[in-house]
Amino acid sequence: MSSSNYYDVTTWPVGNPADDVGEVINSMIADIKGRQTVTDANDGGKPGAVIYIPPGDYRLRTQVVIDISFLKIQGSGHGFTSSSIRFNVSEDEWPDLHELWPGGSRILVDIPLKVDEDESKGAAFYVERSGHPRISSVEFSNFCIDGLHFNPDGSGMHPENTYVNGKTGIYVASSNDSLRVTGMGFVYLENGLTVYNADALSVHDNFVAECGSCIELRGWGQASKITDNFIGAGFRGHSIYAENYGGLLITANNVFPRGASSVRLDGVTRSSVTNNRLHSFYPGMLILGAGSSENLVATNHFLRDREPWTPFLGIDNGLDDLNGLLCVNGSNNSVIGNHFSQIIDSQSIRPPGATPVVIRLIAGAGNFVSNNHVVALDANPKSSDSCFSAQVDALLTTEASAGLSVTTVLVDSESSGNTILDSGSDAQVLADRAANALRLTPTVGS
Amino acid sequence: MSSSNYYDVTTWPVGNPADDVGEVINSMIADIKGRQTVTDANDGGKPGAVIYIPPGDYRLRTQVVIDISFLKIQGSGHGFTSSSIRFNVSEDEWPDLHELWPGGSRILVDIPLKVDEDESKGAAFYVERSGHPRISSVEFSNFCIDGLHFNPDGSGMHPENTYVNGKTGIYVASSNDSLRVTGMGFVYLENGLTVYNADALSVHDNFVAECGSCIELRGWGQASKITDNFIGAGFRGHSIYAENYGGLLITANNVFPRGASSVRLDGVTRSSVTNNRLHSFYPGMLILGAGSSENLVATNHFLRDREPWTPFLGIDNGLDDLNGLLCVNGSNNSVIGNHFSQIIDSQSIRPPGATPVVIRLIAGAGNFVSNNHVVALDANPKSSDSCFSAQVDALLTTEASAGLSVTTVLVDSESSGNTILDSGSDAQVLADRAANALRLTPTVGS
Amino acid sequence: MSSSNYYDVTTWPVGNPADDVGEVINSMIADIKGRQTVTDANDGGKPGAVIYIPPGDYRLRTQVVIDISFLKIQGSGHGFTSSSIRFNVSEDEWPDLHELWPGGSRILVDIPLKVDEDESKGAAFYVERSGHPRISSVEFSNFCIDGLHFNPDGSGMHPENTYVNGKTGIYVASSNDSLRVTGMGFVYLENGLTVYNADALSVHDNFVAECGSCIELRGWGQASKITDNFIGAGFRGHSIYAENYGGLLITANNVFPRGASSVRLDGVTRSSVTNNRLHSFYPGMLILGAGSSENLVATNHFLRDREPWTPFLGIDNGLDDLNGLLCVNGSNNSVIGNHFSQIIDSQSIRPPGATPVVIRLIAGAGNFVSNNHVVALDANPKSSDSCFSAQVDALLTTEASAGLSVTTVLVDSESSGNTILDSGSDAQVLADRAANALRLTPTVGS
Repeated sequence: MSSSNYYDVTTWPVGNPADDVGEVINSMIADIKGRQTVTDANDGGKPGAVIYIPPGDYRLRTQVVIDISFLKIQGSGHGFTSSSIRFNVSEDEWPDLHELWPGGSRILVDIPLKVDEDESKGAAFYVERSGHPRISSVEFSNFCIDGLHFNPDGSGMHPENTYVNGKTGIYVASSNDSLRVTGMGFVYLENGLTVYNADALSVHDNFVAECGSCIELRGWGQASKITDNFIGAGFRGHSIYAENYGGLLITANNVFPRGASSVRLDGVTRSSVTNNRLHSFYPGMLILGAGSSENLVATNHFLRDREPWTPFLGIDNGLDDLNGLLCVNGSNNSVIGNHFSQIIDSQSIRPPGATPVVIRLIAGAGNFVSNNHVVALDANPKSSDSCFSAQVDALLTTEASAGLSVTTVLVDSESSGNTILDSGSDAQVLADRAANALRLTPTVGS
Repeated sequence: MSSSNYYDVTTWPVGNPADDVGEVINSMIADIKGRQTVTDANDGGKPGAVIYIPPGDYRLRTQVVIDISFLKIQGSGHGFTSSSIRFNVSEDEWPDLHELWPGGSRILVDIPLKVDEDESKGAAFYVERSGHPRISSVEFSNFCIDGLHFNPDGSGMHPENTYVNGKTGIYVASSNDSLRVTGMGFVYLENGLTVYNADALSVHDNFVAECGSCIELRGWGQASKITDNFIGAGFRGHSIYAENYGGLLITANNVFPRGASSVRLDGVTRSSVTNNRLHSFYPGMLILGAGSSENLVATNHFLRDREPWTPFLGIDNGLDDLNGLLCVNGSNNSVIGNHFSQIIDSQSIRPPGATPVVIRLIAGAGNFVSNNHVVALDANPKSSDSCFSAQVDALLTTEASAGLSVTTVLVDSESSGNTILDSGSDAQVLADRAANALRLTPTVGS
Repeated sequence: MSSSNYYDVTTWPVGNPADDVGEVINSMIADIKGRQTVTDANDGGKPGAVIYIPPGDYRLRTQVVIDISFLKIQGSGHGFTSSSIRFNVSEDEWPDLHELWPGGSRILVDIPLKVDEDESKGAAFYVERSGHPRISSVEFSNFCIDGLHFNPDGSGMHPENTYVNGKTGIYVASSNDSLRVTGMGFVYLENGLTVYNADALSVHDNFVAECGSCIELRGWGQASKITDNFIGAGFRGHSIYAENYGGLLITANNVFPRGASSVRLDGVTRSSVTNNRLHSFYPGMLILGAGSSENLVATNHFLRDREPWTPFLGIDNGLDDLNGLLCVNGSNNSVIGNHFSQIIDSQSIRPPGATPVVIRLIAGAGNFVSNNHVVALDANPKSSDSCFSAQVDALLTTEASAGLSVTTVLVDSESSGNTILDSGSDAQVLADRAANALRLTPTVGS
């Protein structure tokens, strides 16, 4: 009976999982669908199935298309390792490396892409179903989706550092409910996880790094959570992006640098970004854009410092230091109890001589910015060919640095009626005192 | 040897798992017990077992009784889909639906219930053991418990919308230690998970929704956590309830509407409700009742708006708008850094013409209410037959709304010695200034 | 093909897993390595393997040595039960106990130890690899590592209460990347989990208790997370310890008492301790030591009360009540929105007659201490032979207690330039007002 709802890609009679696991999984899905019948008379459902991917290398030449609810695809190893570091090691040293590639239950995404094809065609796993109900309870767990290589982008940059290859790990195109992505590894994909129109989506405890963009919630959606993940995008993309969302909970994530933004929310309302550790090499770390309103940004740790790793020196997201680490274009948001460390070389500030901004309210009204602590230091970390030691050295360097003057809160004239409490001294808060309510942080001797 | 500690319900020789998986699992438990012997001479234990439920439909006619430690029951799919939406679709449309029921590794709870029987008799999984030590390390993971239908409640309401059927998913009756409930789905049960007298209970990353009450910790207990779950109760019940508890950590949950309370704590001390996203259609969202003291309520996002979905229009929990979204009957609690959005139609306020209350201190002393941000808007969202689009539309509507006067903090005369900081303006905080310490939020121009 | 990457300790031809599962697993690792070849020409990797440990008792006499990436070791049961309670039950009662030992997929650590051997020799699982790249994506999931017994320590204390036995659960000796420890149980080990030089380590949803020290991150490291765990160390050790770390996120943990510290960080920078529930019987609950700087300590619940369980009465960590529950020796840290409950018998304060300290800034500059709420009560909980009921009784006792005078913030002269906001009244904050910026919490009638 239902034991036939357990599938193993290595024992299925159709296809060769080493050569094209996509063909194998699509064949399994067809089998599941062929066996499903609606039998409401006895409360019988279409319970779906589990597809198991044991540890191993599985090339995927054919996109997996999922149009059934209750399908779980599960491996035994998220398999992340840094391909970025490996590709920036001299090829002379490759023979001495223990291993060259990610591992675990590893999907090698090798879909042939045509020019100007829709990006969804480059997805390893494509989820879509029209009609009702929305596709539900598709689960991805504990395997690795590896995009293998990045491509030249015309800039002359090392091709493996461009974050461009047209590949997506998982792409959900239609309205969906109660999907889960848990314990996964995503690496070297232009887009890790892209989900349209989600309800009650859980993205929990994954490792999504060295991808152009990591997690994008597009279209619109509600009541979802992105929790307890390691995430780190490339310089063109976002570690977390959402648009037109309500009730999204982004918490307990550890977001690595290099993304153009750690978190960018456009038109997002009544959502939370709390309790995350965010690290970035550029301004614009957290953007509440396009009228994002009534959101809570609380007890996050923001660290912005300079890129210390040689291969990416000079790369940035194009924003200057007046943009702020946290930028708000919206109303009635709460920014409470965050720590900001702005650790940069005063000689590299842009525009030269400017006073960098930490929190910037660009437009909107009624935001509440309270009890945020800003630490700003003038530091000039050494760069290094070793990614790990360069980053750790930079992170641990705190003592030798001199203070740096910053504007902790800048309120533009298009934003008014805000309340700014204990988030900077008189000199650090630039706001129209007739249009906003302020209480300045007391200073020693004042 | 120990490979015999792995059981699969589809391959066991006793019973028919499709017809009564309860009989099958009870037979397995008897087998486990029959093979266990205490052999302390060589440090040998009674290591328990794992029972695997592959994806499939499994009717349960016989209650599973668990009285051994270290039993793990595990599926491959939490299987949630909205039965509530389906039952409120016209039956004419059912033949066009892709599926009618939840799925995954799905238990269909079909226990015959007698009138006036104790509610524990309606539990699919019943955990109890007397004597010492307390039953330990029972684990439930990644399967679905489906109560199938709700019953008429005499009100004339559509029977499938009553949240009444006498069924419980998991009921733990005796003192217990280190239980885990992870990755599960609970749907259409009058009670999802009910646990008495727990120590170090972990309820993590589950989907408990469309249940009368979702998670109830009863009796007394300590040092537990309810984290990273999706939870949404019916209008009669609580999404999270605990009584006489110490050291409970409720964090990172995304709580959907319709519960009479999102979180209700009675006699709970030294516990935390932090960093959750709470959404409700009624006042009384978070209740610290019955002398709950020394708790921390911090950096939560509270959204209270109006029911937008046609089938439940006019239903509420009976509380008027003077009750507050957060109600405190207890002492020495901390309420810090929360965001409150109160988005209601001013014409629907009860009692008519009243000024709604957001935080209410009913009785007790020494509470610390600090740096909470209240947004109140007068909005009249359109209702809709479509649950998802109605909710998303309501969530994303922020711009067009007018401001609404509210009392951000009301301190009753039975509560005194409280400290209220930066949680409302002079007009918004109603408290005896001789009996409480206040600092009012500065306003523009003041 | 890759199905050969799935191993089960109960079906392997080499060794006897009941007698020495270490020999079995090492034989499996040798097999995995023997089958791995680097085949970069076709993007082929060394994908690793999964080793499954079904529920059962597995003695480990030989240390498991892991030197390959992408190895997952997985069980079906974390198996925690309190050995501490059992060993403190009279032996007369043992025959009536349901079980005597932890269970689940249980490793019985029984490595013969020589005097003065390096502690790494006492580890059940030892992870080390030199060269490049760092060992990656080793995963431990859902099994139990049981140290069985503690040893006499010369003090005359009951040997099973000493927390000393020279055993470690998992010891990672070399630089590593993207390791995961999830759903595990650790019990009766002198050290639970010890990891050197980690990058992107995830320690999530484990049960690490009744160990001398629970989680220690040594050497240096970055960008890791310790989230959603139950943790409780012995009186000599730390529940969580880290040194020379940057970007560590410690959140959503429920930390039980008896550790000398709940969390101790030495030389840790730009990290977060947020949203945890911390319970301790001694001062020094959270120590930011050795110049730890730019960290965020926010929305944690600190409870310090007295040991109520008879076997450990009179034991402590040697710190007197002037040390503070939170001790900061470092600069530019943020301490925001925490709740502190200090519930002690005024007759037991040390030094006698002293006013206990809650937050102490020992040395450094520029710390930001804001909106913390301190509750201090004079209570004398009854001790009991029953661990569970004693703890619950103590936790739930709040009403009968009288107030206790405390210093909420003490700033030593070696620490200056700090900002102290709304964290105590004039009488409760001891700081040089010329060297620090203060705003005192308003009091009733002031």
